[in-house]
Amino acid sequence: MKQIALLLLAVATLAAAVAFTAHASRDTDGAAQIFVTEIPRGYREWRLVSVAHEEGNLNDIRAILGNDEAIKAYRAGKLPFPEGTIIARIAWRHVPSEENNKAFGREQSFVPGEAPPWYLQFMVKDSKKYAATGGWGYAQFDKDGKPGPESDMKNCFPCHQAIKDRDYVFTRYAP
Amino acid sequence: MKQIALLLLAVATLAAAVAFTAHASRDTDGAAQIFVTEIPRGYREWRLVSVAHEEGNLNDIRAILGNDEAIKAYRAGKLPFPEGTIIARIAWRHVPSEENNKAFGREQSFVPGEAPPWYLQFMVKDSKKYAATGGWGYAQFDKDGKPGPESDMKNCFPCHQAIKDRDYVFTRYAP
Repeated sequence: MKQIALLLLAVATLAAAVAFTAHASRDTDGAAQIFVTEIPRGYREWRLVSVAHEEGNLNDIRAILGNDEAIKAYRAGKLPFPEGTIIARIAWRHVPSEENNKAFGREQSFVPGEAPPWYLQFMVKDSKKYAATGGWGYAQFDKDGKPGPESDMKNCFPCHQAIKDRDYVFTRYAP
Repeated sequence: MKQIALLLLAVATLAAAVAFTAHASRDTDGAAQIFVTEIPRGYREWRLVSVAHEEGNLNDIRAILGNDEAIKAYRAGKLPFPEGTIIARIAWRHVPSEENNKAFGREQSFVPGEAPPWYLQFMVKDSKKYAATGGWGYAQFDKDGKPGPESDMKNCFPCHQAIKDRDYVFTRYAP
């Protein structure tokens, strides 16, 4: 059953990628971009949007930060996000903390470990530049600042389309 | 074995609490405080120190934020933390995200849920005011801003003493 589900997922992802590529080609005149090639400056100074934990292959714990435009829109509950919004996602391996466990007296505490392969991800709002992907440019970088391959970035928008009614942004603000 | 370990832990905690109470009484002239009674202003605007996940009874996912003094000291790797440092811990229940799982195609994603009983915790550095507890005042508040009972707060310092060489602060900075 699991193999069949994974196979179906793979087929669906491939179909989405093909459909998306065709769509992007149709929408653009060769100048439009769908991804971001530089790490936005100062992202580590931004305020907290939320946190999350991913099990499975990702096996990470993550923080989602937002620039001023992002935080203001989140707090106002205002959609779509304004031009210039940037949302940052930093991930670390989800590792047990022996030190904390000793203090708690039991195995329960997990903290950030090493950087995973894609340490940083960003969504940058620019409705003109990224018109082909819902007004958002996507990006990911490894711990050395190397951007992810264009082929990977083409998989972002097909998934984010599932939440078009929240302006394609999965993360909700954690009060 | 587990029962014996828990019993030993209970005895050790009790002994530490008794020792601590005696110590605090001896050190103070009636004016010293060991805990903080008001939520520090603006903590939700502070920068990120780290994130963590606690299993077991706590069952939470948390963000640790720091005011300017905290962030500056953390990044400089400078100990002890300067006067005025405040470290904030916000926790939310660790709950699965059906929406994210649907997008990933598998059960793997956890996000912030409701506030747990002790939604907020703080450590405030004031070496004179909190001389009896290593120069740190401790605090916790529920989601309505009600502070935790003084009896609970007496349990903070005995645990934090385990990391006296890091100025009693468990959380490390996540780069």
